[in-house]
Amino acid sequence: MNQEIPAPGRRNAAPRRKAGRHFLQVPGPSNVPDRILRAIDRPVIDHRGPEFQALAKSVLAGLKDVFRCSGPVVIYPASGTGAWEAALSNTMSPGDRLLMFETGHFATLWRDLAVKLGLEVEYVPGDWRHPIDPAAVEAKLAEDRGHHIKAVCAVHNETSTGVVSDIARVRRAIDAAKHPALFFVDAVSSLASLEYRHDDWGVDVAVSGSQKGLMLPPGLGFNAIGDKALAAHKAAKMPRAFWDWSAMLAANANGFFPYTPNTNLLYGLNEALTMIDEEGLDHVVARHARHGAATRAAVRVWGLPFQCAVENAFSDTLTAVAMPEGVNADAVRKTILENFDLSLGQGLGKVSGKLFRIGHLGDFNDLMLMGTLAGVEMGLDLAKVPHKKDGAQAAMDHLAKTAGA
Amino acid sequence: MNQEIPAPGRRNAAPRRKAGRHFLQVPGPSNVPDRILRAIDRPVIDHRGPEFQALAKSVLAGLKDVFRCSGPVVIYPASGTGAWEAALSNTMSPGDRLLMFETGHFATLWRDLAVKLGLEVEYVPGDWRHPIDPAAVEAKLAEDRGHHIKAVCAVHNETSTGVVSDIARVRRAIDAAKHPALFFVDAVSSLASLEYRHDDWGVDVAVSGSQKGLMLPPGLGFNAIGDKALAAHKAAKMPRAFWDWSAMLAANANGFFPYTPNTNLLYGLNEALTMIDEEGLDHVVARHARHGAATRAAVRVWGLPFQCAVENAFSDTLTAVAMPEGVNADAVRKTILENFDLSLGQGLGKVSGKLFRIGHLGDFNDLMLMGTLAGVEMGLDLAKVPHKKDGAQAAMDHLAKTAGA
Amino acid sequence: MNQEIPAPGRRNAAPRRKAGRHFLQVPGPSNVPDRILRAIDRPVIDHRGPEFQALAKSVLAGLKDVFRCSGPVVIYPASGTGAWEAALSNTMSPGDRLLMFETGHFATLWRDLAVKLGLEVEYVPGDWRHPIDPAAVEAKLAEDRGHHIKAVCAVHNETSTGVVSDIARVRRAIDAAKHPALFFVDAVSSLASLEYRHDDWGVDVAVSGSQKGLMLPPGLGFNAIGDKALAAHKAAKMPRAFWDWSAMLAANANGFFPYTPNTNLLYGLNEALTMIDEEGLDHVVARHARHGAATRAAVRVWGLPFQCAVENAFSDTLTAVAMPEGVNADAVRKTILENFDLSLGQGLGKVSGKLFRIGHLGDFNDLMLMGTLAGVEMGLDLAKVPHKKDGAQAAMDHLAKTAGA
Amino acid sequence: MNQEIPAPGRRNAAPRRKAGRHFLQVPGPSNVPDRILRAIDRPVIDHRGPEFQALAKSVLAGLKDVFRCSGPVVIYPASGTGAWEAALSNTMSPGDRLLMFETGHFATLWRDLAVKLGLEVEYVPGDWRHPIDPAAVEAKLAEDRGHHIKAVCAVHNETSTGVVSDIARVRRAIDAAKHPALFFVDAVSSLASLEYRHDDWGVDVAVSGSQKGLMLPPGLGFNAIGDKALAAHKAAKMPRAFWDWSAMLAANANGFFPYTPNTNLLYGLNEALTMIDEEGLDHVVARHARHGAATRAAVRVWGLPFQCAVENAFSDTLTAVAMPEGVNADAVRKTILENFDLSLGQGLGKVSGKLFRIGHLGDFNDLMLMGTLAGVEMGLDLAKVPHKKDGAQAAMDHLAKTAGA
Repeated sequence: MNQEIPAPGRRNAAPRRKAGRHFLQVPGPSNVPDRILRAIDRPVIDHRGPEFQALAKSVLAGLKDVFRCSGPVVIYPASGTGAWEAALSNTMSPGDRLLMFETGHFATLWRDLAVKLGLEVEYVPGDWRHPIDPAAVEAKLAEDRGHHIKAVCAVHNETSTGVVSDIARVRRAIDAAKHPALFFVDAVSSLASLEYRHDDWGVDVAVSGSQKGLMLPPGLGFNAIGDKALAAHKAAKMPRAFWDWSAMLAANANGFFPYTPNTNLLYGLNEALTMIDEEGLDHVVARHARHGAATRAAVRVWGLPFQCAVENAFSDTLTAVAMPEGVNADAVRKTILENFDLSLGQGLGKVSGKLFRIGHLGDFNDLMLMGTLAGVEMGLDLAKVPHKKDGAQAAMDHLAKTAGA
Repeated sequence: MNQEIPAPGRRNAAPRRKAGRHFLQVPGPSNVPDRILRAIDRPVIDHRGPEFQALAKSVLAGLKDVFRCSGPVVIYPASGTGAWEAALSNTMSPGDRLLMFETGHFATLWRDLAVKLGLEVEYVPGDWRHPIDPAAVEAKLAEDRGHHIKAVCAVHNETSTGVVSDIARVRRAIDAAKHPALFFVDAVSSLASLEYRHDDWGVDVAVSGSQKGLMLPPGLGFNAIGDKALAAHKAAKMPRAFWDWSAMLAANANGFFPYTPNTNLLYGLNEALTMIDEEGLDHVVARHARHGAATRAAVRVWGLPFQCAVENAFSDTLTAVAMPEGVNADAVRKTILENFDLSLGQGLGKVSGKLFRIGHLGDFNDLMLMGTLAGVEMGLDLAKVPHKKDGAQAAMDHLAKTAGA
Repeated sequence: MNQEIPAPGRRNAAPRRKAGRHFLQVPGPSNVPDRILRAIDRPVIDHRGPEFQALAKSVLAGLKDVFRCSGPVVIYPASGTGAWEAALSNTMSPGDRLLMFETGHFATLWRDLAVKLGLEVEYVPGDWRHPIDPAAVEAKLAEDRGHHIKAVCAVHNETSTGVVSDIARVRRAIDAAKHPALFFVDAVSSLASLEYRHDDWGVDVAVSGSQKGLMLPPGLGFNAIGDKALAAHKAAKMPRAFWDWSAMLAANANGFFPYTPNTNLLYGLNEALTMIDEEGLDHVVARHARHGAATRAAVRVWGLPFQCAVENAFSDTLTAVAMPEGVNADAVRKTILENFDLSLGQGLGKVSGKLFRIGHLGDFNDLMLMGTLAGVEMGLDLAKVPHKKDGAQAAMDHLAKTAGA
Repeated sequence: MNQEIPAPGRRNAAPRRKAGRHFLQVPGPSNVPDRILRAIDRPVIDHRGPEFQALAKSVLAGLKDVFRCSGPVVIYPASGTGAWEAALSNTMSPGDRLLMFETGHFATLWRDLAVKLGLEVEYVPGDWRHPIDPAAVEAKLAEDRGHHIKAVCAVHNETSTGVVSDIARVRRAIDAAKHPALFFVDAVSSLASLEYRHDDWGVDVAVSGSQKGLMLPPGLGFNAIGDKALAAHKAAKMPRAFWDWSAMLAANANGFFPYTPNTNLLYGLNEALTMIDEEGLDHVVARHARHGAATRAAVRVWGLPFQCAVENAFSDTLTAVAMPEGVNADAVRKTILENFDLSLGQGLGKVSGKLFRIGHLGDFNDLMLMGTLAGVEMGLDLAKVPHKKDGAQAAMDHLAKTAGA
């Protein structure tokens, strides 16, 4: 007997069902397309058999196209936080020194993780409204004549603030300082949505995850690894086992993994890579740029301040909107969730309660954005947040003007 | 070997993939919620076993709540067209006469079907912009002193035009004429979205289908059957086998079917009935009313004419918008589909090319409506249809004003 | 709030959950493969749009390969019973005469349906253990000098008994009698599992459904239509609307349907046709033949009588096993279902309680068959049905001997 | 345009499709039931919202029932290997000493992992055919007068050999030695299939994963944590971040996670816990015992040696069968996979090529077992492995005799 089919008479559900599709507009996890959910919804296979081998080779190759890298990408059955740890524990020795930049909450979490692992961190303070200053990078490295700094760590797209750092310029700053430090980039919320060019930008290790631009549920973490990082790995002395690149790369060479992989998410990853291919990675990036611009057009009309203080550092995957003094952003979010079934991202860490974040990344289109912005605008109204109307209208004007682009 | 996992290297897809969720805003099939799709995605079971029996009893009982009827509802593994045929072939004898009303394309199709079945139809002409006129019903029946008319057939919500006929008033007109004709109602696009009261309104047979308010894929047709219709059935002489109520009701009494049922859609139906219960049927109706009003607010601002000519006959499940002379509505629809991945309903039959229909029924919410209306407004712009802006804004104002209602 | 995620604390389920996969070995519906269920589990699309058009053209073409016919195949959103009705109502006029053969329960149901539709049937009696006798066909037709018989109707694989009639020989008998009658074949439980050759065998209309060899859930009915049947259709006077070939073929020509199709089952059909293609139709037939032989090897060792009395008429899609006098077959089936979660087919009509049917059709393989036969053998033991052991062993020997064939 | 619906004309698939369901009888991942796959196939939700909170609380509570523990269980978005690392890095300080036992490949991998993490391991050698010897445990600990050994690590069910160690007796040996070492148990392939009693047996940390008895895809790792382990955690000095219990427990207290959880697998876990509840954990254990006994009955008749040398140490989740000298077990497995679509587990590490492993765990029933054993027996025949017939028959006899138990 199958317990799933209820006996006659139906459940007396406590909260009223909300009709229609939930709008999950946090800046990740992003909305997982049905195609990917269905790809995941397949019987698990023997991860030591030939069918798995073909799958693994397909996704390992496909990820290189997305990172735009020629070196290997490793896949952990773990979230992006694990991939942060992997990048450090594979390349550093106890007590090594890192240069990190306080661009926001996730930069701070990565710093905290490095400290927990026993590394020393020089953490350049920031106001959570500006990208990394390449001049500061160069200055810090120039000061470090003894080359005690072993790696520069940069968050590409700071998910807590919607501020994008210019990775190519940070690279040039490192080079200008003629410093041998490795260059690590957190591309968690930029990969497959913002332009990211691993090889061209000279990144040594990029860290990413499955649940943002790749449109998957959370559960996969990635390291894209350059030659210089691999060389450092050989000499690095931090203890590591689960995260160990050597065991992973040796097994991957044959299409296998050193321990049980997250097979069903790999089905989903294969589908995601196919879908990105079908749209074209450049087109994916252009689509995000268009939606970022439309969102900012709405926010400008509303007259609400952006968390990002610098015009050319706006993120195209999320927009963080600051609330006026005295308005609790979480109360606004709650009003919006309850009335319009729209989830927005909360303020994290020191901006908790002060801003909300609109995610516009992943598998997303014009009408989903318009639904989202309408929900925000109506919510501002219901929550009595002082604002001008016609923000959604401005976004719509932008979209109509640039349609088919 | 599972052929589903492609070999390394991915497909070279011809048309560019469109990102995000398609907006299926035709007036049915409506968007099928994931819960229902997953309910359907279950192994088929033996339709002669006890588990099936429990399922059948559950859905047969649940449907009565949705039709608000006390008599039986039968379920055909067929579309609504089949349910039209079932209503007639179970109750009529060859050459019997029907009174039907030209409210639009679907009324005409039902008429055509009746004629094909060998029935005589008195078809009261209409302009596709008005509901059935109860006075005309009464007059026609009063004229029919010999009671040659065996049934009055009314389309409740004319899906081709967005015009709703007042079923309770038609009933009163029949009664006023003291005519014994049966009363048949097409509730295909009204059930579980507009108010429909089978017993209260004295309907003898209601016809409906799965793919509108019930949120299912197409494939199930229904007849809700009253006592008077059952009595007529005993005497009716039209040949029937697949559609035969007697065999169906006899088998249903034990939770079975006289031939193989559409088991997986019944899984979905059970889930749909649960979901309607979780929201509450009255709330479902109120939600559709609110979305109908918001849509009309937008159309009024755009300055485009409604197909429905009568204020109190507007449908809350779809809105048919007429295009100005010289504008091909299908070209506008094509622009909207290509640019915004939004499917609207086409003009059918004699209004082909002259209007488009916005579906706002089924599993739907405020932000899906705002995405839809934004898509229409941007499409009007791109297709250079003369219109005023701020229609979507007007809908948004309505929704914000009535939020939480 | 999503009602699907239960609050902490779990359901107190009444009957104990049975672990593992249910063995659905009734002779249809057959086990639906996951690939097909997932294909069905997709958002519904506009059945008037270009994407649907491509889907419809794909399945309409693919079905011809499976029927091995050059003429059109029409698809009804209905079960096989509907397709029976369609074959008759499209080609006959009221009072026309049919020649039918009592091979078992389904032949009888088809006869009953014809009678309900107002046709006259000459029903040649049978003992439910033998196939149609071609000599009887020829004799009956030779007698009919006035050509009052308009069609000969044959059930290819009688699902209630596991007896296969030789369609090619029946055709030759019709030809030998030089009789102009149309030739209709029920291929419901033979299509895509037994050899079926529509054109080669000179069948005029074949009737089939989705839930057997095509591996789909129930809900689609088919008519494969030859030229002679199309010609008869033009002149046929039975009333018809839902089943009308003319409207169907006209719409199908453009990839559309005259009324709402069962879109999601068409997704599944497309996947099923792909899967048959991947295995190869000849291989599908050979696989069924091998499983039929292995099953019969088991039954022979058990020492239980077959319902089929003729060696060369055994079905390869199901095997009907008669019980000794005094043993209720349904009690045996119940024992097997309760102890081994295996559903077998019941005796239908006049063999009710006297036999059970083992389905070995559709998406099936050696180990599923061995599980099935082990379940039957253990069930015979538990139910104390006199039998010899080693039946499953004999099947295993056959499979091992013919492995890789 | 949805790229999923192929254009007319179907794929020319290279390898012939194999019909029917694959038998995945490796000793994990086990077959994932459809219910769980469908539960996973749901839109991802905001892991900082109230709906997620309810889900997390449900699974965190439910896991305690399965481990039979009163302390917390933590869930990592990682495989069992990660959970091994978590157990050690949360409780140990650099250079700490562990006592481990060479029961097989997985014991060796855990040892290797400990060494990689910088711990010292006293590894008691074994022949991969015997369980841990409690006398040896006691002796080793008695020798360690300085209490340098900080933890005893035992693999409960050694997945590479099918040998079960008696955890309660190991506990008593530790107690008999009056040694303060922590007691860590790998319950990866025993949880929710063999009897496991965390609190009763005095285990300090149990390690497990999702893809065995819990019937899920791989991707979740667990630590069940006792008080003594929590106390040790406070003082432990190994660097840790991703695996850190403190951060995890603090967040879990509110139904959240310190970093992005594997939401969709948690949906599946919730369903799995419900299903275990519906069957009853004791019944799950009894079912595995019955299937283990039936499998061993088959192997005994075949006359093939078990890898497990001790009668009372046989595993009920898998059976490792040794091949005669000169027979390559992997060639036999290949024959079985190619002919019968049955995946068996390979010999790992030093028994590579020498044995195969039959998994009989997870969502499994009598007929799936009979299909599996028939596949093995036919494969032995095809591969010309010397053996006696009637093994499957013996298993069947056992199952029939114990049916309904």
